[in-house]
Amino acid sequence: MSLKQDILHTAVLAQKAARFLGALSSEKKNKAIKAMADSLLNNSQAIIKANKKDIKFANEQKRSSAFIDRLTLSSQRIKKMSNDLLAVIALEDPVGKVIKIWRRPNGLNMCKISVPLGVIGIIYESRPNVTSDCAALCLKAGNAVILRGGKESIHSNIAIYKAIFKALTKCGFPEGCISLICTTDRAAVSIMLSLSDHIDLIIPRGGESLIRSVVENSKIPVIKHYKGICHTYIDKYADLNMAEEIAFNAKVQRPSTCNAMECLLVHKSVAAEFLPRIVKRLKKAKVEIRGCQNTIKLVKGVKKATNKDYATEFLDLILAIKIVNSMAEALAHIVKYGSKHSDAIITDNFPNGMKFLKLVDSACVYLNASTRFTDGNEFGLGAEIGVSTDKLHARGPMGLEELTIYKYMVMGNGQIRK
Amino acid sequence: MSLKQDILHTAVLAQKAARFLGALSSEKKNKAIKAMADSLLNNSQAIIKANKKDIKFANEQKRSSAFIDRLTLSSQRIKKMSNDLLAVIALEDPVGKVIKIWRRPNGLNMCKISVPLGVIGIIYESRPNVTSDCAALCLKAGNAVILRGGKESIHSNIAIYKAIFKALTKCGFPEGCISLICTTDRAAVSIMLSLSDHIDLIIPRGGESLIRSVVENSKIPVIKHYKGICHTYIDKYADLNMAEEIAFNAKVQRPSTCNAMECLLVHKSVAAEFLPRIVKRLKKAKVEIRGCQNTIKLVKGVKKATNKDYATEFLDLILAIKIVNSMAEALAHIVKYGSKHSDAIITDNFPNGMKFLKLVDSACVYLNASTRFTDGNEFGLGAEIGVSTDKLHARGPMGLEELTIYKYMVMGNGQIRK
Repeated sequence: MSLKQDILHTAVLAQKAARFLGALSSEKKNKAIKAMADSLLNNSQAIIKANKKDIKFANEQKRSSAFIDRLTLSSQRIKKMSNDLLAVIALEDPVGKVIKIWRRPNGLNMCKISVPLGVIGIIYESRPNVTSDCAALCLKAGNAVILRGGKESIHSNIAIYKAIFKALTKCGFPEGCISLICTTDRAAVSIMLSLSDHIDLIIPRGGESLIRSVVENSKIPVIKHYKGICHTYIDKYADLNMAEEIAFNAKVQRPSTCNAMECLLVHKSVAAEFLPRIVKRLKKAKVEIRGCQNTIKLVKGVKKATNKDYATEFLDLILAIKIVNSMAEALAHIVKYGSKHSDAIITDNFPNGMKFLKLVDSACVYLNASTRFTDGNEFGLGAEIGVSTDKLHARGPMGLEELTIYKYMVMGNGQIRK
Repeated sequence: MSLKQDILHTAVLAQKAARFLGALSSEKKNKAIKAMADSLLNNSQAIIKANKKDIKFANEQKRSSAFIDRLTLSSQRIKKMSNDLLAVIALEDPVGKVIKIWRRPNGLNMCKISVPLGVIGIIYESRPNVTSDCAALCLKAGNAVILRGGKESIHSNIAIYKAIFKALTKCGFPEGCISLICTTDRAAVSIMLSLSDHIDLIIPRGGESLIRSVVENSKIPVIKHYKGICHTYIDKYADLNMAEEIAFNAKVQRPSTCNAMECLLVHKSVAAEFLPRIVKRLKKAKVEIRGCQNTIKLVKGVKKATNKDYATEFLDLILAIKIVNSMAEALAHIVKYGSKHSDAIITDNFPNGMKFLKLVDSACVYLNASTRFTDGNEFGLGAEIGVSTDKLHARGPMGLEELTIYKYMVMGNGQIRK
């Protein structure tokens, strides 16, 4: 079979399996996820053995220690992956929920009901736990999934997939429910992205270049997240103690995440009091500060921020700062440089707070809280399959509900259109 | 300005206007729509005059009388367009609705709230009333809209647009709220479809070839509707009188619509009784019948249906018929040939009815009713901007609600992530 035939075959099986999964009870889906969780533990040794090959390759390629750390699986980490699956069991089944029910004057009974999306393709990089996480989330939402991981973790992914697949087969699930593209040939991705008659949604997870290339080539709808350039705006009426705690948390607590703050906007009337305090604390935490001309005047040891800095997702201990003359200027800055991810205002002024929440067009807007809360678990949605900075279908953290859509069931007793 | 700069400029203004519209009260939006409706009436003569140019061109091109009829505007039809706008005023504002509200253990107040999508591009053919309809629906949902009509109705579209634009300007609305691409240069569409940083959604309305070309070229998410190959399945346990009325209605009442029945599936155990009756009645209504081998055996004057017939949206007085041995065979036929639009079962057997509603993966599934009800007005959603056979964001008739998305507003009192 050619690569193209091979992937088409996978997609056709997935589509068939999606019909099976869509009609399944919560109980049967949960049983299968439990079996998957157990199978991960039972196959720990095989997974660790496979993972060692990936680590060896990463060392040969002289990848960073952070990269190798993310890649590495221990029996403890496999235990965590297994527990993450058990957590999915506890989540409410998003399928078959009545969203709306009404009756038309002609007696038709209308029911808008949640259903699975169908077949979901996940294209991801490095972290092997994505393999089991995404498999369980898609399955719980009644979707078949086609996984395509990066070549860096191919051995780990195959071992994890084998463990999961064994469990599903034991439960009597058809082959296509969860598939892994086992080749590292990049052509496989292009083929996958062309199968719009068989795959309903693509979710890319990884760096911006991966995501851009998926969007560029896909004939299938994509839900994506390019980057998180998150702002915190310290209003004229901010409680500056609160502002300090929140800004520090948003930058420093985990700077490598997409919901970390990249730019601090400060109203001119509080800048002289606030900036020296926060900069001192940030510098103590080894944060490099790049500020506007006025920031530089107020605080020592600040580099000049360029326009490029304001447009950059540092994902690191670097912060851009800008002093603004008004909230309108802060809003305009966010329009120009923001990424529609997460932005916060710190203020005790209610109208200003409401105005910010209303006018900032981001998936998550915060009043007096850290942007670091943009996360499925922190929102109480349970595990998340990704974060969307798109405007269609889903915004912000995507949980199980975002892996479903709806259909209309219409029940009559002979109605015809006049 | 080059065409590219020109359209980019339009899109940038639209994006700016979207921010204005997104923050507007229902009252102000309704006032503007009222002004648009009035302006259509006040500019009736200019619109009819422009329309005459389009009709002249259509006659020169020897277009069909049905085509010219759809294109023609009379003062009565303009009155109807104006009334359709007034109906939009009466619809509930879909923006600012609280979808869900909850509180996290750390005290964060979470609010999922409906917001406009942003900028919507509509690419459409012939019918000039689409210009005013889409403009009003997008505006009511707080979106800016960029309209690109077909060259066949370009003069009518420009005249309608001018009338609307005048009204909006009087109301103090910025230029970009509603735009019309006035050139008929096809390159304009490709440019529009490339502006993914400025346009949030494309809705193509027209024939399948228009829609396929839009999907093929768009870098912007598209919600579309290729075709409606709608089935009615007459179950073994159908009330055959009801079945006859519904099948006749679904085929004959308005065969040119996407929700009309194209294929009738009949369980073998009722075929001998049902088919002669319905075929006789359909033939009287000048419906051409193309049936399977077994249908031909049962009824005289039936042509042989090919596989291509089963895959065709006739949009005409033609019907494909197939006798099936079981409901499973009917379901398999719909999987193979259906278009995920609208499909119906006629049965008095409750489990069979529920099974069909659950297993058929179409936007609208019917029990004992005509597929012709798939329509925004018939569903009670108010006017519709289109019908989606996609799986993402919206399925079936798309009303105002489907022109919105949500964002999360998170209100705290100093929460930071641990």
